[in-house]
This record gives sequence, C-alpha cells and structure tokens, in this order.
Amino acid sequence: MSNLVNEFNGYRTKMNEVILAKDNLVIKRLWNLDTNTYAAGALDVTTKELLGLVASMVLRCDDCIKYHLGKAYELKVTTEQMYEVFAVANIVGGTIVIPHTRRAAEYWEELKNNE
Amino acid sequence: MSNLVNEFNGYRTKMNEVILAKDNLVIKRLWNLDTNTYAAGALDVTTKELLGLVASMVLRCDDCIKYHLGKAYELKVTTEQMYEVFAVANIVGGTIVIPHTRRAAEYWEELKNNE
Amino acid sequence: MSNLVNEFNGYRTKMNEVILAKDNLVIKRLWNLDTNTYAAGALDVTTKELLGLVASMVLRCDDCIKYHLGKAYELKVTTEQMYEVFAVANIVGGTIVIPHTRRAAEYWEELKNNE
Amino acid sequence: MSNLVNEFNGYRTKMNEVILAKDNLVIKRLWNLDTNTYAAGALDVTTKELLGLVASMVLRCDDCIKYHLGKAYELKVTTEQMYEVFAVANIVGGTIVIPHTRRAAEYWEELKNNE
Amino acid sequence: MSNLVNEFNGYRTKMNEVILAKDNLVIKRLWNLDTNTYAAGALDVTTKELLGLVASMVLRCDDCIKYHLGKAYELKVTTEQMYEVFAVANIVGGTIVIPHTRRAAEYWEELKNNE
Amino acid sequence: MSNLVNEFNGYRTKMNEVILAKDNLVIKRLWNLDTNTYAAGALDVTTKELLGLVASMVLRCDDCIKYHLGKAYELKVTTEQMYEVFAVANIVGGTIVIPHTRRAAEYWEELKNNE
Repeated sequence: MSNLVNEFNGYRTKMNEVILAKDNLVIKRLWNLDTNTYAAGALDVTTKELLGLVASMVLRCDDCIKYHLGKAYELKVTTEQMYEVFAVANIVGGTIVIPHTRRAAEYWEELKNNE
Repeated sequence: MSNLVNEFNGYRTKMNEVILAKDNLVIKRLWNLDTNTYAAGALDVTTKELLGLVASMVLRCDDCIKYHLGKAYELKVTTEQMYEVFAVANIVGGTIVIPHTRRAAEYWEELKNNE
Repeated sequence: MSNLVNEFNGYRTKMNEVILAKDNLVIKRLWNLDTNTYAAGALDVTTKELLGLVASMVLRCDDCIKYHLGKAYELKVTTEQMYEVFAVANIVGGTIVIPHTRRAAEYWEELKNNE
Repeated sequence: MSNLVNEFNGYRTKMNEVILAKDNLVIKRLWNLDTNTYAAGALDVTTKELLGLVASMVLRCDDCIKYHLGKAYELKVTTEQMYEVFAVANIVGGTIVIPHTRRAAEYWEELKNNE
Repeated sequence: MSNLVNEFNGYRTKMNEVILAKDNLVIKRLWNLDTNTYAAGALDVTTKELLGLVASMVLRCDDCIKYHLGKAYELKVTTEQMYEVFAVANIVGGTIVIPHTRRAAEYWEELKNNE
Repeated sequence: MSNLVNEFNGYRTKMNEVILAKDNLVIKRLWNLDTNTYAAGALDVTTKELLGLVASMVLRCDDCIKYHLGKAYELKVTTEQMYEVFAVANIVGGTIVIPHTRRAAEYWEELKNNE
C-alpha cells in the first residue's frame, strides 16, 4: 500500500478528531458545509471535485490537493483529464504552481499504482 | 447594451494591443498558450472555462472572473450552475471571496439582461 | 453624510439581495456562519472584529476591511487602537498592505467625521 | 519534552543566527520592529499576539503560526479562545486554512501536554 | 499632464499625511525602512527598483506597481527592459497577473507620454 | 556533498520526467517558455534570475526559491547581494517571508559550503 496516501489519510483523520472534539460550532458547521459543497447539483460530482482541485492548486495547498486527488481517483477521472486540470492551474497560477504539480503528480502515481 | 461588459471588453482590447505591439516574445507566447489551455481535450470546453473561473475567483482577480463569465455565458452555462461554481469558490477561498462574488453576480446579471 | 460609507453599504446590500435570491444553499449557510463567527464567546465581540479586520488587511480585501471598520467603529474602537491593528497588518503582510492601509485610513476618517 | 516545539525553536534560533551574522541592516531593523509591534500599547499583548496569529493563519504560514501559538500559550490563552481564533481564520480564509489548522492544533496539543 | 500619474501621486501624498499624523511608531519606522531598502548597496538602485516592481506585480498590488514604475521611469529604464520585467511577473505569477500588466502598461505609457 | 541541494535536484528531475511523459502540450510549452524567460535580453541573466528569486520569495514558494538560488550561485552572485534581495522580499512581503528566508539562507549556506 502507498505510503503517501496512507500517511495523508492517517494524519488527516487523527487531527480532525482532535479538532472536532473541541466542539467549536463554527468549525464544525464549516466542515459540514464543505461536504455539502461537493454534492451533486446542477453540476455533477466529478466537475465539482475538479473545481475544488484546481482551486486548491492555484492556492497552492498540498493537503487540499491530495484530498481532491483522492476523490477524483475514486470518481475514475483519467490521467489525461487530470493533466488538463494541472495545465489550467499552471497557466492561471504561473510557474509557482509547478512544485505543487510535482507533488500532485507523485500522489496521483501512488493512487494509480495501488490498483 | 451593458456598460460593465462593454467597458471591460473595450479596455481589455485596447491595452492588449498596446502590450502586444511591444513584441515581447515571452508575453506573446504565454497569451497564445492561455488560449490553447481552454480548447476542448479530454475535458470539454465548458468544464475548462469553469475551472478557469473558479481559479480566478479564489485568486480574487475581478478582470479574470469577468473574462470567464463572458465565456461561460456564451457556452450557455445556467445561473444555477454558475452559483454552484461561486459556492465552491466561497468555501475554498473563504469570506474574502464574497466581495468578488458580488461583482461577479453583478456582471452575470448584465450578461443575462442583454439578452 | 459620508459618500464612501453610503456607497459601500448600498452596493453591498443590493448585491447581497441579488445573490441570496438565487437560493444557493451553500452560500446562504456560509453567510449565516460568517455572522455567527463574530458573536461573543470565549473572546469578546471587539477582539473578534479586530481579528476579522487584520485577517482582511493581510489578505488585502478592501471591501472586507470596510465592513470590519464599520463594525469596529460601532464598537467604539479608538483611533489609537485601530492604528495598532494597522501596524500588525503592515508588519505581517509587508509594504504591499500600505495601499490598503491608505484606503482603510480614508474610510476610518469618514466614519469618524460623520459624528 | 515535545519534539515539534523543540525542533521549531531550535531551527529558528540556528537560522536566525546565520541570517543576523550577515549584518544586512534592513533585515535587522525589520526584525527589531517585528518585536516592537507586539508590545503592549493601546491594545494589550494578548490581543496583539492573537492578531498576529490570525494573520499568520489566513496567510498560511505554518512557522509563523507556531511562533504565535508559543507566545499565546505563555500568555495563558485558553483552548476555547484559541479555537475561536481558528474559527475566524477558517471562515475568512476558507477551507484551504484547514490543513494549517490541523498542524496548529497538533502544535497546541504539544504545548499543553508539556505542562 | 497625465491624469493617472497625478491622481496616484496626489492620493498617495494626502493619505500618507493622514496616516503619519497618527504617530504610530511601528508604521513610521516601517515606512522609513521601506525607503532604505531601495538605496544603493551591493545591488544598484535600478536593480532594486525592478526587484520591488516584480514583487509588486506577482503580489498584484496596482498601487505598489505604479510607485515602482514611477521610480523606474526616473531611472531611465527602457520600455524593452520594462517588458522583460513584465514577462518574468507573468510567467512566475501566471495569467492572473495579466490584468495588472494591462494597468501597468497604461501607466507606463502615461509616464512616457508626459515627456 | 550537500544533502539539501542533492535532494532538491533529484526529486525535481524525477518528477519532471513523470510529468513530461504525460505529454500535456500546455504544460510542456509553459515549461519551455519558463526557460526562455530567463535568457539574456534587454536585461542580463543575473538580473532576471534575481527577479525570479524575489518573485518566488514574496509568493513563498520554497522550491522555486531553491531553484533560483542554485542559478544565482552559478552566476556568482555574492552573499551580500543575495541578502539585499532577501531584504526586498522581507519588506515587500512582510514577516511571513521570514521562515522562507530561513530556509533560503540554509540552502545558500549549503551551496557555498560545497565549494
């Protein structure tokens, strides 16, 4: 099993528990809302996940990128489609997005190689 | 005819001419590449425009937002779909995206009211 | 009456109505949550408004800054306290925050001169 | 003793020495000014540290966050107050602040568990 | 005489006076330090102004850009050199820098046409 | 030989190969263009690399910083000049640039100590 994927999911789960245990109402509601945002609506789930991914890439948030890569993988997004999302992010956000694209590409390979 | 839409397009065209007349090769190629990025590929043109839009929204670039709103309008994106893109941008980017959402909503109304 | 303050509040109210009329659930809930965030809790309301202000300043969102300036004014924050918030924002965010500080200072003067 | 806290402080001290030894006047003065910014004035020290913290969170600077968490801990900020600062940062800055909130929460636990 | 240039300088001078009159020590010292940063040293003044300009462009601060364009103009930077700075900013920062490049190009034309 | 430098270059080369093998035309062309951007023109190569460096610093992209530090080192930029670039970045971008300056200083030491 992939190290990168397991590590990311493990840390994420552990720390989400720590945070939610503090019972801050605003944080709990924001996190619920976050889940709702990507539910099927006028746009389908895959489009929404790719919107979340490209937004995370131009804002250069590696963990957010990993999260949406995991979701996109489950939704059967192809590697060719994925790299077109990477291309939009690199053009809009510039070459500072490249290092994040490298880490995204690495994580995507691990998701694919788990198959 | 809408003032906001005309003003944006007019200024954009005028200044693009000034810039391209300087013949800087890197800028000219980047702008060409920008056009290629949104061409149909493994992802369709509408999805790509919405990716460009959400990226512009979280990076809070009003003129970039207007450009992609214009394109999305031509591609018959519905208001309901558009607001789901706005929702992703607001959740990922936070409440600092709200003022840009106001201006995006205003521009979208003008595009629709031109009909 | 101040032009800057009236213009800001007028446009904000008008566009919020346009947006909320579209009935996007995520946006509506996020906006509600935004209001809850600044309610009194373990921290008092003034501290929370100043936190919202400094966050808006380093993220360089002029309209967000105006909103929190208006709230801070209602809460009787003094000019001396206000400029200490400006100072934190300028040190953390650097000289790119200066132009936003100019506009914040102008808006603050108008709020004070309305008295 | 906590690993995270020691590592952060150790690396910070070591590299600050390397940088200050180069005797760049602008950097030395900026760092002095940084210290002055958080001194008691019209706002008390705790409020100022929380302003510095929320600014660091929305700008997503993990090391800056750790620094202000350490200071806030010394100033006896409670966990409930701390999570209200986290909430403001998450609402203003959006879900891209969540991964930084996870690392902030982890560091805060280590500070508290050192007691 | 150019409207853009006069307006920018006039507003800047007026608001700097308002801010400095409040006598916030941190802000005053930061502004002094800002001036020192661009003084001749191991790097010459023109290089330093261009560094300040490109930093302002990728951070997308229109007023900061105008300030450094004014300085670069006084230092006899050529249009060809200027567009190479624009090119670096557009490549590093991506297409979201384009609208700021349009406004920078417009301001540069006004500076040149004043001759 | 330096660990930091080798690690950075090794990972960069490995992931660039993975990405380029996917044959996404936009990404390939952007990367070519990136190389062209720093070629000698109206501005010399060293000035352009320093522009790329300061842009990377204010955008707080550690890997981009390392890349330009490596280039600047090859171009015989002195430590005194380098710290003047760091100073511009810290003033324009604020104290959130400090942690990135620490890592930049560490990498620069390793480049120099390899001699």
